[in-house]
Amino acid sequence: MARLPIWPTQNDFPMTKGALKIAIAGLGTVGGGVVKTLASRHDALAAQAGRKLEIVAVSARDSNKKRDFSVGSLLSDPLALASSDADVVVELIGGEEGIARKLVETALQNGKHVVTANKALLARHGKRLAEMAEAKNLQLKFEAAVAGGIPIVTTLREALIAHGVDAVKGILNGTCNYILTEMEVSGRGFADVLKEAQAKGYAEADPTLDIGGGDTAHKLALLSSLAFGTAPDLLNMRVEGISHITAEDIGFASEFGFRIKLLGVARQTYDENGAALGIDQRVRPAMVRARTPLANVDGAANGVVVDAGEAGSFFFSGRGAGEAPTASAVVSDLVEIARGSFGPVFGRPAAGLKNLVPAESGASAWYLRFDVLDVPGVLAEIAGRLSDANVSIESMIQRGRAPGEHVSIVMITHESPQDAVERALKAVAASDKVRARPCMIPMEAA
Amino acid sequence: MARLPIWPTQNDFPMTKGALKIAIAGLGTVGGGVVKTLASRHDALAAQAGRKLEIVAVSARDSNKKRDFSVGSLLSDPLALASSDADVVVELIGGEEGIARKLVETALQNGKHVVTANKALLARHGKRLAEMAEAKNLQLKFEAAVAGGIPIVTTLREALIAHGVDAVKGILNGTCNYILTEMEVSGRGFADVLKEAQAKGYAEADPTLDIGGGDTAHKLALLSSLAFGTAPDLLNMRVEGISHITAEDIGFASEFGFRIKLLGVARQTYDENGAALGIDQRVRPAMVRARTPLANVDGAANGVVVDAGEAGSFFFSGRGAGEAPTASAVVSDLVEIARGSFGPVFGRPAAGLKNLVPAESGASAWYLRFDVLDVPGVLAEIAGRLSDANVSIESMIQRGRAPGEHVSIVMITHESPQDAVERALKAVAASDKVRARPCMIPMEAA
Repeated sequence: MARLPIWPTQNDFPMTKGALKIAIAGLGTVGGGVVKTLASRHDALAAQAGRKLEIVAVSARDSNKKRDFSVGSLLSDPLALASSDADVVVELIGGEEGIARKLVETALQNGKHVVTANKALLARHGKRLAEMAEAKNLQLKFEAAVAGGIPIVTTLREALIAHGVDAVKGILNGTCNYILTEMEVSGRGFADVLKEAQAKGYAEADPTLDIGGGDTAHKLALLSSLAFGTAPDLLNMRVEGISHITAEDIGFASEFGFRIKLLGVARQTYDENGAALGIDQRVRPAMVRARTPLANVDGAANGVVVDAGEAGSFFFSGRGAGEAPTASAVVSDLVEIARGSFGPVFGRPAAGLKNLVPAESGASAWYLRFDVLDVPGVLAEIAGRLSDANVSIESMIQRGRAPGEHVSIVMITHESPQDAVERALKAVAASDKVRARPCMIPMEAA
Repeated sequence: MARLPIWPTQNDFPMTKGALKIAIAGLGTVGGGVVKTLASRHDALAAQAGRKLEIVAVSARDSNKKRDFSVGSLLSDPLALASSDADVVVELIGGEEGIARKLVETALQNGKHVVTANKALLARHGKRLAEMAEAKNLQLKFEAAVAGGIPIVTTLREALIAHGVDAVKGILNGTCNYILTEMEVSGRGFADVLKEAQAKGYAEADPTLDIGGGDTAHKLALLSSLAFGTAPDLLNMRVEGISHITAEDIGFASEFGFRIKLLGVARQTYDENGAALGIDQRVRPAMVRARTPLANVDGAANGVVVDAGEAGSFFFSGRGAGEAPTASAVVSDLVEIARGSFGPVFGRPAAGLKNLVPAESGASAWYLRFDVLDVPGVLAEIAGRLSDANVSIESMIQRGRAPGEHVSIVMITHESPQDAVERALKAVAASDKVRARPCMIPMEAA
């Protein structure tokens, strides 16, 4: 066997036994949670880390804001943290470019470990930043970037590695899951529930990144990298949000024994002979069979299934956002750094992370909903178009309203390739008997 | 603050960059799985570990047994592994004393890291063995000892540490969970299903350790230690198995919206003022509300809930036994050792692990089943005894058979202290209208 590219061991990694000196950039919900936890659990954490954890500098956008904790004097310039005497910089500013990126790069250049919750930054620039860290034997840790308090980053990097990973599937955005759960419970429509979620603080004033699937995409790119040893890749990913899901779809799903969830799925695909083709990454609403683990993830919670080859499927769930769960993830990264934990950022040396080879996975069964005029021949026309594309129907529900008004026709197909179904729907959509673009949702196997 | 007992950093930990040399003691299901995985996934694992993982010696009880893999020559004496040139000894012999204990002790004395799946050994001697390992800056890792492929040991030791742990609750024995699931699905009795499980290889010829709760107790002792920073403690633990559970109990549970699961529960208890009292450790069948995560753990799977203070509840499930899941845990420990991961065995320096202070948790609601003669006055008598003990009833089902035959009376109590309920049942059992010892199962809050 060829000589392996050996990366440095922990013996090369500079470390003292004094307190771990921490600088924190950003005092929002998560930053405040980290500060409070490091204070209130000081002695317990020191016992677990083998060293004290000491905050030496903090920056915040608004240094005059009233806070329910004290941190001494606040710096207004986050970049100053990168030249402080801290051992670790905790980046909680967010955003894939700008000051957050500059801070992480400068901190690494200056020989400081970095802990970040910034999924957007790592999804875009993860490979390069990991190379920078590893070149200097520094840690760049990001447990808080995906699924809040659920230790899914550590699990994929360190635990479920023996048999490889076939697929990772997750409910990774609490806002979307809250909205879909509320729609189901209350029977109300998307727009109405979104408005309420905004009022309650569960959704942002501009909810695009959440409901459009972008936030899930960032997180999925990181999980996919950890699972498959590829560089994080946002480009080779189909992303679809939840804003077109109606209360009617959720009701029909329930009748068929399913629930609709926004899933991020990254899956190894194979040809007919079992040879690996590449990775299929997608974010989209999916029908998940009731009583399976992901179907039972309710409200703002997160959940992840890892199919770990022969070792079987594992499921992890819990709070995926908010002050305490996210601070929990940041603090566990800090303790790992204090302990001197060592290992490459994405589980394999960053320089060796391969480019992702995109490969769509094969057929799936589909839920289709057609919003049609209640006129003769409409069902025949839809059935004909599906038949033309070789898509066959497993079950169907037609539900009428008042005569002459619009009617929903819902079908579950047998396994069919996505492009065949899309072709059929395009033909159907051209009909003057059809009132709106047909809705198409994959049935996710358990 | 007083100076902390600083334990060594990874700089004190001897490590080379060559292959990690591994000796394996025991070639049963798990040992075979480890050998096969290290061979078939050799390059992938080397990329993750940063070094090759190389088996240098293996011992097995029967060196002539036909196996579906080759490992070179086999040693018959496991103790020889402790003086081999291995860096790590993997102990897969089992048993809390005898050769397994001797091997682990000698390996540590000889400066070798140890990976083990031996829950009995660590539950009994964990603190002493951890002290031996830490005195020599060695790793003693045991992810495979609890819940097979689920990384719950790593999670408690490294991830869910920021806010402390209030409780750990687990379905930790696949044999019991398989039997209870089969009883529910088929309506058959315990003895019948156990016999079938033995025929299928899901239960041992002597199933005492599984169905009596002893195996769950070993695992719970380890989780409790990791969660609360106490030395593993098997003595301060109430343990009850599942052999008294009847198909009727499972049927009644279902009518009330519950499922019966054998749970290991370790919980921090508090007095009325919120001051910590101690740890309540118990293994016993419990009523778990349907649709909660633990209720949905079916068949031979395992599942664990961790209540992590303000960070909320987290749930982990997957295959808890068998070749691939357990090998997965062993191999992930080996990769961590190869990477130079560093940290104390039970999350805190072993010398500082406190003795567990036992403290029963307060009241709970109870399921009670009385097997009575269908004669006048029996219900009045039971109700009277419960009332005497100040136990009040929330709901009741009485189901008659033919007149004069025996009848089951089932009650769910309001929250009541265990000793009060036990007192009442003892009084009821003394009645000549009662045919058998009443059955008493706690209702576990979600």
